[in-house]
Amino acid sequence: MPRTTETASFKFNHTMIRVKDPKVSLAFYQDILGMDLLSVKEFSDFTLYFLAFNHEGRELTAEEKEKSRFAREGVLELTHNHGTESDANFQGYASGNTEPGKGFGHIAITVDDVEKACERFEKLGVQFKKKPSDGKMRHIAFILDPDGYWIEVVPGVLDL
Amino acid sequence: MPRTTETASFKFNHTMIRVKDPKVSLAFYQDILGMDLLSVKEFSDFTLYFLAFNHEGRELTAEEKEKSRFAREGVLELTHNHGTESDANFQGYASGNTEPGKGFGHIAITVDDVEKACERFEKLGVQFKKKPSDGKMRHIAFILDPDGYWIEVVPGVLDL
Repeated sequence: MPRTTETASFKFNHTMIRVKDPKVSLAFYQDILGMDLLSVKEFSDFTLYFLAFNHEGRELTAEEKEKSRFAREGVLELTHNHGTESDANFQGYASGNTEPGKGFGHIAITVDDVEKACERFEKLGVQFKKKPSDGKMRHIAFILDPDGYWIEVVPGVLDL
Repeated sequence: MPRTTETASFKFNHTMIRVKDPKVSLAFYQDILGMDLLSVKEFSDFTLYFLAFNHEGRELTAEEKEKSRFAREGVLELTHNHGTESDANFQGYASGNTEPGKGFGHIAITVDDVEKACERFEKLGVQFKKKPSDGKMRHIAFILDPDGYWIEVVPGVLDL
């Protein structure tokens, strides 16, 4: 279905998930998944972290990062409600894949080589929901982020 | 932080949410938000619908749509577990923003004119979580999709 002129400017800009401890989550999304931190917005009760993959082949300036925060697709927003990281009574966030609260499923990243990416994840101590060798779907995997959110790892090029 | 060579191919490909009734949700994401349906994958118990905004300025071929499903960012995957649409006992899905099950927050679309986009949404009968005129953040809005998921409507260009 062709888009209407009224929606011609629309982009699927970002997906927001809440995280318990931004230090742990930023290490995961930056060092393990390889996203760039575009922007940090601190408020009195919470802080927002915006991340995205840099496909430019060069480092972006701070202004470019800040601008791209709402000018592109594929942005991940992490919301940290201050205090959860050190609250012994904090129950953790639901991943969206268990009852009650089921609804949200996962985010996904495409990679050029799922096997290789997963070998690296394993070396880095990443938890798996499903390794490529598990189950029927041998070409995909599911890893878990520090809060238990599912991240699907899918080949970026499909054999049609 | 610059990406490593090992993650250079990575893309934030898609976000998956479960929907009760695909007819209702497809009408919403196609006709109201203006996304294109890229691909439909039917399985015995469930069907997957992949949608994305078409920024090409032309209609894509079926093969291009199918290929772009994992080759680009900004894809939305809707999972329909067969039967929920006609199950009187189905409780509906949690949006991720209420206890228990809080975790997932929202998806967001950027638009060139938030006011205009919201006027149109209102005419089309879309439910609002927050109209632009509500609260302090006058430049953004939150609409609700048919399952109650929050969709943030944000200006695509920020005044820095």
